[in-house]
Amino acid sequence: MSRPRCHPRSHYRAFLTLTTRWADNDAYGHLNNVVYYAFFDTAVNQLLIEAGVLDIASSPVIGLVVETHCNYFSSLKYPQKVEAGVRVAQLGNSSVRYEIGLFAEGSEAAAAQGHFVHVYVDRATQKSVAIPGATRKVLEGLSATQL
Amino acid sequence: MSRPRCHPRSHYRAFLTLTTRWADNDAYGHLNNVVYYAFFDTAVNQLLIEAGVLDIASSPVIGLVVETHCNYFSSLKYPQKVEAGVRVAQLGNSSVRYEIGLFAEGSEAAAAQGHFVHVYVDRATQKSVAIPGATRKVLEGLSATQL
Amino acid sequence: MSRPRCHPRSHYRAFLTLTTRWADNDAYGHLNNVVYYAFFDTAVNQLLIEAGVLDIASSPVIGLVVETHCNYFSSLKYPQKVEAGVRVAQLGNSSVRYEIGLFAEGSEAAAAQGHFVHVYVDRATQKSVAIPGATRKVLEGLSATQL
Amino acid sequence: MSRPRCHPRSHYRAFLTLTTRWADNDAYGHLNNVVYYAFFDTAVNQLLIEAGVLDIASSPVIGLVVETHCNYFSSLKYPQKVEAGVRVAQLGNSSVRYEIGLFAEGSEAAAAQGHFVHVYVDRATQKSVAIPGATRKVLEGLSATQL
Repeated sequence: MSRPRCHPRSHYRAFLTLTTRWADNDAYGHLNNVVYYAFFDTAVNQLLIEAGVLDIASSPVIGLVVETHCNYFSSLKYPQKVEAGVRVAQLGNSSVRYEIGLFAEGSEAAAAQGHFVHVYVDRATQKSVAIPGATRKVLEGLSATQL
Repeated sequence: MSRPRCHPRSHYRAFLTLTTRWADNDAYGHLNNVVYYAFFDTAVNQLLIEAGVLDIASSPVIGLVVETHCNYFSSLKYPQKVEAGVRVAQLGNSSVRYEIGLFAEGSEAAAAQGHFVHVYVDRATQKSVAIPGATRKVLEGLSATQL
Repeated sequence: MSRPRCHPRSHYRAFLTLTTRWADNDAYGHLNNVVYYAFFDTAVNQLLIEAGVLDIASSPVIGLVVETHCNYFSSLKYPQKVEAGVRVAQLGNSSVRYEIGLFAEGSEAAAAQGHFVHVYVDRATQKSVAIPGATRKVLEGLSATQL
Repeated sequence: MSRPRCHPRSHYRAFLTLTTRWADNDAYGHLNNVVYYAFFDTAVNQLLIEAGVLDIASSPVIGLVVETHCNYFSSLKYPQKVEAGVRVAQLGNSSVRYEIGLFAEGSEAAAAQGHFVHVYVDRATQKSVAIPGATRKVLEGLSATQL
């Protein structure tokens, strides 16, 4: 059960600052492990919305989550703020794999890091489709290799 | 089922900016009504922690929530930011009633407003006790009448 | 800051059993006050769905929450199960006020009780409309006076 | 980005039935991916509590989550009930890896499956320690090979 290498902030292409909530602290006094995934979702979709390529209510093609993963290195606690770093690690025809790092505000070392995979589907039929061109451009801008 | 008057921003003594999350939007596409209470909790306790009168892990006297209430005027949606206004409306010997207004970032009109009541108790025995002096001072500073 | 009378189980017309979650327990070791409202939402909508008068994805007329309230009498803790009692306390032309009591499984005394008010709106325009006939029938069946 | 094999119900050693909530459904109308992890946490800890080897408030040795993972095969929706299957896949000196499958009530095919790893630590110092004997016995009973 070996731990992955912890990526530095420079690994990521975009950062968002997110606030924690009282209820995020669980009975052990730190952020519940589940909350980290709420940050993953929030960071990735916010980047897409702000780039103008996702309208939650009406986009005809949407990304469905098919895989998520997280490694936890140190604990975070409300009321700390969290900085979420995002980069695109793999970009396929209909799927994209994001890597996300969560940092206590101002910290150089990630408290946690993980990934999640979106498969793009037609909203009505839920069948997988190619990632739309405008979205792909945004994802390329977030990619490791700056295609 | 009449609605209360919607208080302006000037009604509140302190403001905090809080971020919304993807999962806050429910099946109807806007913030679930439950999330507003997560903001209430978060705003009030953060003010107390930042003022140095609450240590979640070790304070021997803590506030337990005995009543909460919220009226919803208009919807909020992720990824909007929310500004939470707080004031102390009533300050008893062992209890305090907060009023909270939630505003879409930059908006003059509250999207929702409500209150919640903390009763201070001894952490170990859960019996009600007088609000500690240092906490009372902070609460007076947040009170409507600036006692 | 007086407390309301705590209603007995017989006050309610329908009961649902709901499970708690690890993350429901907050830093003080009991269910966060916010979670109670998640149970309110869940119990009321589940009754409507099971009665066949709400389809979350497609109903053209839906209930929007305009007011919620809760009084907390004693604490609940994961992994306890919770029994939610529901009754309709007021039934207007376009709005309905539910009363909800939350009981630790098997307990006679409510741990918390509150209410919430749904205003029915046209899903597309968000304008208030009369409660549909089939829904009204279900609500009458849940009402205090068994109209 | 290949998918793992989906395990049948017989893969798991214990099952719990968990209820979904209105707020679990996100803007896309199905359970948010984050909620699945709330079920993981809930199922595993509930097994430990019911077996008498975890007291959330007072156990001197506790399991901290260091890694979680989930693959999503099909969507779940409130108000469906979810059955969580659990087994212990690896049992080390101070850590344990659980595999969890989530099934729509009565379904043979898992909607999602994943794992999470607890490292046991001294609650006060947060240093890793050996899994206590009584806990180990319970974990062995949940293990794949029935040690």
